[in-house]
Amino acid sequence: MERMKDLAYYNGRITRIADMMIPAGDRGFYFGDGIYEVAMVFHRKIFALEEHLDRMEGSAAMVRIGLPMPREEIGRLLQELADRVESECQFLYWQITRGTAPRNHLFPAGVDSNLYVYSKPWPGVEMADDYRLVSVKDTRFLNCNVKTLNLLLNVLAAQTAKEQGCQEAVFVRDGIVTEGSHSNVSMIRDGVFITHPADNLILPGVERRHMIAYCGQLGIPVEERAFTLEELKQADEIIMSSTSHPSMRVREIDGTAVGGRSEELVGKLRARYLEEVEKLREK
Amino acid sequence: MERMKDLAYYNGRITRIADMMIPAGDRGFYFGDGIYEVAMVFHRKIFALEEHLDRMEGSAAMVRIGLPMPREEIGRLLQELADRVESECQFLYWQITRGTAPRNHLFPAGVDSNLYVYSKPWPGVEMADDYRLVSVKDTRFLNCNVKTLNLLLNVLAAQTAKEQGCQEAVFVRDGIVTEGSHSNVSMIRDGVFITHPADNLILPGVERRHMIAYCGQLGIPVEERAFTLEELKQADEIIMSSTSHPSMRVREIDGTAVGGRSEELVGKLRARYLEEVEKLREK
Repeated sequence: MERMKDLAYYNGRITRIADMMIPAGDRGFYFGDGIYEVAMVFHRKIFALEEHLDRMEGSAAMVRIGLPMPREEIGRLLQELADRVESECQFLYWQITRGTAPRNHLFPAGVDSNLYVYSKPWPGVEMADDYRLVSVKDTRFLNCNVKTLNLLLNVLAAQTAKEQGCQEAVFVRDGIVTEGSHSNVSMIRDGVFITHPADNLILPGVERRHMIAYCGQLGIPVEERAFTLEELKQADEIIMSSTSHPSMRVREIDGTAVGGRSEELVGKLRARYLEEVEKLREK
Repeated sequence: MERMKDLAYYNGRITRIADMMIPAGDRGFYFGDGIYEVAMVFHRKIFALEEHLDRMEGSAAMVRIGLPMPREEIGRLLQELADRVESECQFLYWQITRGTAPRNHLFPAGVDSNLYVYSKPWPGVEMADDYRLVSVKDTRFLNCNVKTLNLLLNVLAAQTAKEQGCQEAVFVRDGIVTEGSHSNVSMIRDGVFITHPADNLILPGVERRHMIAYCGQLGIPVEERAFTLEELKQADEIIMSSTSHPSMRVREIDGTAVGGRSEELVGKLRARYLEEVEKLREK
């Protein structure tokens, strides 16, 4: 099999990412009417695939989008597509939209949902110790637990962060820290791992979940509870986590130096992550 | 010039609507990162074009999307495209997205925004007297004044309405009626026209604005203020308005008979609308 530098897939068609064309009538384009997932490929295997498929099913069910094929077939297809890309380490993205039809808010009748996938090379496990955050007001919808394509406010927050010389934005709603523009936020305080409850105000991040599990394995107490920006600033450590950036230590929020006082615990959590990645070699 | 049944336009390319293909990298597809407008074409002229261009500029500015060409050129292009469609009466849609680029939340550098337009035949002025509404909880973002492509919750509300045997949903946030899933809601009570203030909780509808202007011309007092669902149910008349459906009288909300007690005022407002449409003949 000849491998590609990167690839995109749309309802059975495969091209390079930059060449993929889709119908303008895809409801993703008119309404952001779809859900998505991102997973990492390490050693040619999809990391935490079943958890991503679980969340995909959950997101799709919450917005009443049917899967274009059974879950297991989607999983097999994703692995097949990853196998066709040269790099052993990839950023794998897929989205499911509510079909293609003339524009109308109502669900189209008798139309299958669309599956779009792309995979591109990725440098490896991305961790860092120098994240700067800017806080932004969280005016997003109250359905942040669904991984939808309605991401305009996340886009604006991420751009604000960049323009402030920061790597991420952190949303604050009614005084409570919710999450980043494309990551979850957690903190360590007096040896306790603290993160926002997985309710409708945040995305239930797969890495957030992994960290909670690692804490359990390492004997680190976990509290899932709301906290303020002030409390976050006083934490011993602040970690932004996402699938592609699983452990980004924060050193500054809104220009104030923060964290950096519990490096050992962060190190233990990172080591557990890396162990899980290494297990993929034997799969 | 040979006219088409309908047409789509994307950055200079013209096809039938069903044939238009766009790059998957259009940020509308990944993030709903764009804004849109709908205008009616009557007698081959675009109704309220300048007001739609005003709102387009406002929406684009609020989400920091640059126009792909000057406003005046967009206006001319829209009229040219409408001229190429057979029907004298059309539904004209256009959207501007933040360009095409590899997926990344950050604004892409050095990339022009994309202009997508379609126009299709429309039967004529659509008014009705038999709308049934269902109330739904408004959990949308707090940026409803921007006409963005982040419409998933509007889609779900519209579908809920249909499944309840209704023509529209009406959003209720913290006890206050905001708007419909794709229309504004206004009411008449004791001869006064009452509608939600044009703040961040509703789209500043062009027809809503027209109705307020018509009220001024007709000597009907106007109140722009918040009201509850209970107050709405007790109104003399309830009108849902949008560009494509400018005056839909409501007869039922959540199964309760409502309105129907100030038909004369509704009739006057409708007559003013029709006069404005007729003026297009002479343009």
